[in-house]
Amino acid sequence: MIRITAFRWVPPFAQGLSRDLRLRWALEEAGLPYEVRQIGFEDRDSKSYRGLQPFGQVPVYEEDGLVLFESAAILHHIARRSEALMSLRPDEAARTTTWLFAAMNTLEPHVQNLVEIDLFYPKEEWAKARRPKAVAAVKKRLDGLSDWLDGRDYLERRFTVADLLMSLVLEALRHTDLVAEVPTVDAYRLRCQARPAYAKALADHLAAFAGNEPAAA
Amino acid sequence: MIRITAFRWVPPFAQGLSRDLRLRWALEEAGLPYEVRQIGFEDRDSKSYRGLQPFGQVPVYEEDGLVLFESAAILHHIARRSEALMSLRPDEAARTTTWLFAAMNTLEPHVQNLVEIDLFYPKEEWAKARRPKAVAAVKKRLDGLSDWLDGRDYLERRFTVADLLMSLVLEALRHTDLVAEVPTVDAYRLRCQARPAYAKALADHLAAFAGNEPAAA
Repeated sequence: MIRITAFRWVPPFAQGLSRDLRLRWALEEAGLPYEVRQIGFEDRDSKSYRGLQPFGQVPVYEEDGLVLFESAAILHHIARRSEALMSLRPDEAARTTTWLFAAMNTLEPHVQNLVEIDLFYPKEEWAKARRPKAVAAVKKRLDGLSDWLDGRDYLERRFTVADLLMSLVLEALRHTDLVAEVPTVDAYRLRCQARPAYAKALADHLAAFAGNEPAAA
Repeated sequence: MIRITAFRWVPPFAQGLSRDLRLRWALEEAGLPYEVRQIGFEDRDSKSYRGLQPFGQVPVYEEDGLVLFESAAILHHIARRSEALMSLRPDEAARTTTWLFAAMNTLEPHVQNLVEIDLFYPKEEWAKARRPKAVAAVKKRLDGLSDWLDGRDYLERRFTVADLLMSLVLEALRHTDLVAEVPTVDAYRLRCQARPAYAKALADHLAAFAGNEPAAA
């Protein structure tokens, strides 16, 4: 049985974004059953968890002795088992891999930089001074993505695991209007997230948090 | 014949770091011949280049009609063709893929954030205010890497393409003492870069720039 780790609970700003959702969605698309091992923030630095995940992040993927981390690497692994997520043709699979890395290294670092400014340091002077260029960096990548998607429904000729990942990277900008301001990209995000597997994965992801709501302070 | 793109020339601070070096090194390890298509900064936004690379970055990899971008995705593709870079065993290959994504999404965004502060905005007030936390974020990842590498020569049981990539991500901190301050990580970086294929790739990478030195202003 496939087992993934997820945080027992995350604050509302991270619900719908934390990275177990990526895996849940892919596993639903692939029709692979899985179980979830819930961990707390306090477990991130334990020696046993660091043995599975050297940086203390979620998720970890475990199956028959194989341990993987990095959500995008796990997505790639799951996708190799299901044509629903990636073509069996090596050239098409390589293009999907290209887009997985584009989502993780060309888009997400800029998205996360802005998320950090807006959600973690909104009152810091440096964050206010830094923000315009951080926004410009995000817009530049969204414009590149928009030009590429012009005339395309998905990054390549059909939905793949790279679209799943890209749409969730874009989702992290939900506290802004930046995606809405780029109609081609916004339509693409909605097209990906209209899939039944996303609805199922999101519901399971949120239900876990709802069941572990901390007592009010 | 494999063809990769590289910038005709980059300023000294980027020489030894720009991403064609990653591919040159991997191609040397794999023993695959290649040619280089040099482009200028002005080519990044051309319609024809954007058709190959939607974000205008280097490198692009072309071979028999297949076009790939994202240096780590190209490394993964090259590695699938050579056991010198990645095991043929699916479980070991998946671990290598995990580390490729760790280098690109867990380490490099923090490294690049600090590079940007130090090399692009050293005099900005926001950069000075931001720097301590940016350094702390890098140190946290270096410490995680150090704990993992304790007792290991490489990320997994033997050198793979993930070590190649990780060592070059670490190299981008060369303007600081941060890697030198973590002996396990520094020794690992040097161990990777002692490989003859790295020396050959670096020499070719630098020779191209030397041959295209712009006229003094």
